[in-house]
Amino acid sequence: MFDKLVEYFLKFPGIGPRQAKRFAYFLSSADNEFVDELSKLIKEIKNNAVQCVSCRRYFENSKNDASNRCPICSSLNRNGALLMVVEKNLDLDNIEKTGIYNGKYFILGSALSLKNEKQNTLIFKELFNKAQKEKPAEVILATSATLEGENTARYIEKILEPLPVKVTRLGRGLSTGTELEYIDSETMDNALKNRK
Amino acid sequence: MFDKLVEYFLKFPGIGPRQAKRFAYFLSSADNEFVDELSKLIKEIKNNAVQCVSCRRYFENSKNDASNRCPICSSLNRNGALLMVVEKNLDLDNIEKTGIYNGKYFILGSALSLKNEKQNTLIFKELFNKAQKEKPAEVILATSATLEGENTARYIEKILEPLPVKVTRLGRGLSTGTELEYIDSETMDNALKNRK
Amino acid sequence: MFDKLVEYFLKFPGIGPRQAKRFAYFLSSADNEFVDELSKLIKEIKNNAVQCVSCRRYFENSKNDASNRCPICSSLNRNGALLMVVEKNLDLDNIEKTGIYNGKYFILGSALSLKNEKQNTLIFKELFNKAQKEKPAEVILATSATLEGENTARYIEKILEPLPVKVTRLGRGLSTGTELEYIDSETMDNALKNRK
Amino acid sequence: MFDKLVEYFLKFPGIGPRQAKRFAYFLSSADNEFVDELSKLIKEIKNNAVQCVSCRRYFENSKNDASNRCPICSSLNRNGALLMVVEKNLDLDNIEKTGIYNGKYFILGSALSLKNEKQNTLIFKELFNKAQKEKPAEVILATSATLEGENTARYIEKILEPLPVKVTRLGRGLSTGTELEYIDSETMDNALKNRK
Repeated sequence: MFDKLVEYFLKFPGIGPRQAKRFAYFLSSADNEFVDELSKLIKEIKNNAVQCVSCRRYFENSKNDASNRCPICSSLNRNGALLMVVEKNLDLDNIEKTGIYNGKYFILGSALSLKNEKQNTLIFKELFNKAQKEKPAEVILATSATLEGENTARYIEKILEPLPVKVTRLGRGLSTGTELEYIDSETMDNALKNRK
Repeated sequence: MFDKLVEYFLKFPGIGPRQAKRFAYFLSSADNEFVDELSKLIKEIKNNAVQCVSCRRYFENSKNDASNRCPICSSLNRNGALLMVVEKNLDLDNIEKTGIYNGKYFILGSALSLKNEKQNTLIFKELFNKAQKEKPAEVILATSATLEGENTARYIEKILEPLPVKVTRLGRGLSTGTELEYIDSETMDNALKNRK
Repeated sequence: MFDKLVEYFLKFPGIGPRQAKRFAYFLSSADNEFVDELSKLIKEIKNNAVQCVSCRRYFENSKNDASNRCPICSSLNRNGALLMVVEKNLDLDNIEKTGIYNGKYFILGSALSLKNEKQNTLIFKELFNKAQKEKPAEVILATSATLEGENTARYIEKILEPLPVKVTRLGRGLSTGTELEYIDSETMDNALKNRK
Repeated sequence: MFDKLVEYFLKFPGIGPRQAKRFAYFLSSADNEFVDELSKLIKEIKNNAVQCVSCRRYFENSKNDASNRCPICSSLNRNGALLMVVEKNLDLDNIEKTGIYNGKYFILGSALSLKNEKQNTLIFKELFNKAQKEKPAEVILATSATLEGENTARYIEKILEPLPVKVTRLGRGLSTGTELEYIDSETMDNALKNRK
């Protein structure tokens, strides 16, 4: 059973064998109250942390809102004309922390890998339907500037092509801290094209 | 509730805010079966992973042995004349993996910090009683070669002084990979004294 | 003398005490030919590696060109309408390696620190004169996206204000590898503003 | 010539292409006095930093001692009964810094690689002759606790076998900072054998 718990922790993001074992020992020696409460919280997270039917974000439905829409999607203060597509919940959290963006979101989710094509197709369809129905003026593709992120963005551009919506991508160029001595040619190319 | 789960994960060894959040999102989007099983395993770890009454190690009592002694303490093939004192379960696991040591153990446990003097006193008393009763020929202090580890070893030496037991400490010197160009003076001192 | 050589190596960019000592020992045990040739090369670098009178770049004047203009400044294939201002020779080298830019350059030089105001003033004046005389259509400020780089760019913008030249800065946004989960608010702000 | 200087710097220990280039630019823009003095120092290092005929260490022969023996070898305060064999000048420097050892040294030198067998043979012969002539009570092999260092030590043990000298090796065990959780089996084995 100890080994089985270790196996479960190994499935957690970024956790290797030594840390998984450390978690299991930690719980073995933790007091009963901590362990019971943790066990309960984990069980309940699936009931309380619902996935927003509108943006696919996980949020705590504390008000037991029957609509299952997250606070951002329900808010009247957010600009519905802008729909930003991000990869993960943590991306959304980080962008919200900057306080710069006031539009709506759509989250592709961790599912977006090459492994699960069927689910990807469903998610992309959901995005298409949302854009078709809500008619935002602009969809901003905010995927990471990595090979995978670029591929995802390119793929979504194609999917949204039939719709009369403007599709943009986040600007490329020097990010904070970039030094010219170490700049890669792709970033230099973008920085030069996007100079102003 | 999401935030509370994040708080609980923050208490896990080596886990910071970002990773705690990542865990919570991971569980939010994991399938029900995984979450239910994990919740169950965590709850049961306290029942099945019992602390050995003899060496204080946590182990899975799969045979439901009423004596609550771990396989090493119960084994007739381990040399009872040697008692090695280690800091953590993971230290014992690592030493067992080397296959070099065939004696018994006593685990001080994560409790051994300056924060919890009362519990420390209890643990040291338990070690004293065990050494008095089991009469090993030698107690080997296998604490880490850090300031805290050295202090702990020195403290235990004093505690065991009244007993007619030989108390030793692991040899100090060059560990695998040590280069003379970078050697610290303490290690050099030990390596020179322990040359042979 | 050994210590004096170590001191000299300590002035090299990025070299600490241990490495400076290592260099001195390396030379002590190197063969005569190597040391003599190195000594000669170092002495001659000041004669042969001249500073271009036009862009302030150091280059090897192998053709003994009396004009003391570097190959880029002398070239007829480079677009004289673009003048890119960079901080260091290594920045220019790296940008040239990308093969993306075909204009001319001006190098501020390592002198550009807050320590040497008098020399900075001279360099900025040289840039002003060059821009006034050569009349490029655009001056591109390619300083690093660091606090110091931004300050330098802002300062140069003011200096060039009296001239009828367009002054631009490299585009800001996601650089290759930027992940939304870790993006800072300045980069997010730029990436959002520069979306397209 | 610039490229040739870069090539020379690439031969310096631990220097890669970018740093070699940085050095060359640094010298291009350094003032004449610095460059001239450095060039002179490098040229003279070969004359002034002589190799001690007794221990093979490089030292500055500032007193122009005709014996070409380093201060340690000449000193009457160092214990001639102990001869410590080290790999590099920097090892000796570091050991001296600890102030723990008061015997004499013999330096194998950077030459000790598998590449240059002929020179290695000469060096080992020199060590044999020195030990035979000076008759130290003990030769301490202070090579690094790496595969190469162990091989060297084993090789020297064989070479000195014919002589009536005690040959020892630095003690192995926990070095400062070693944690039991991460200890390798070789170090554990040594630490256990050398416990006391």
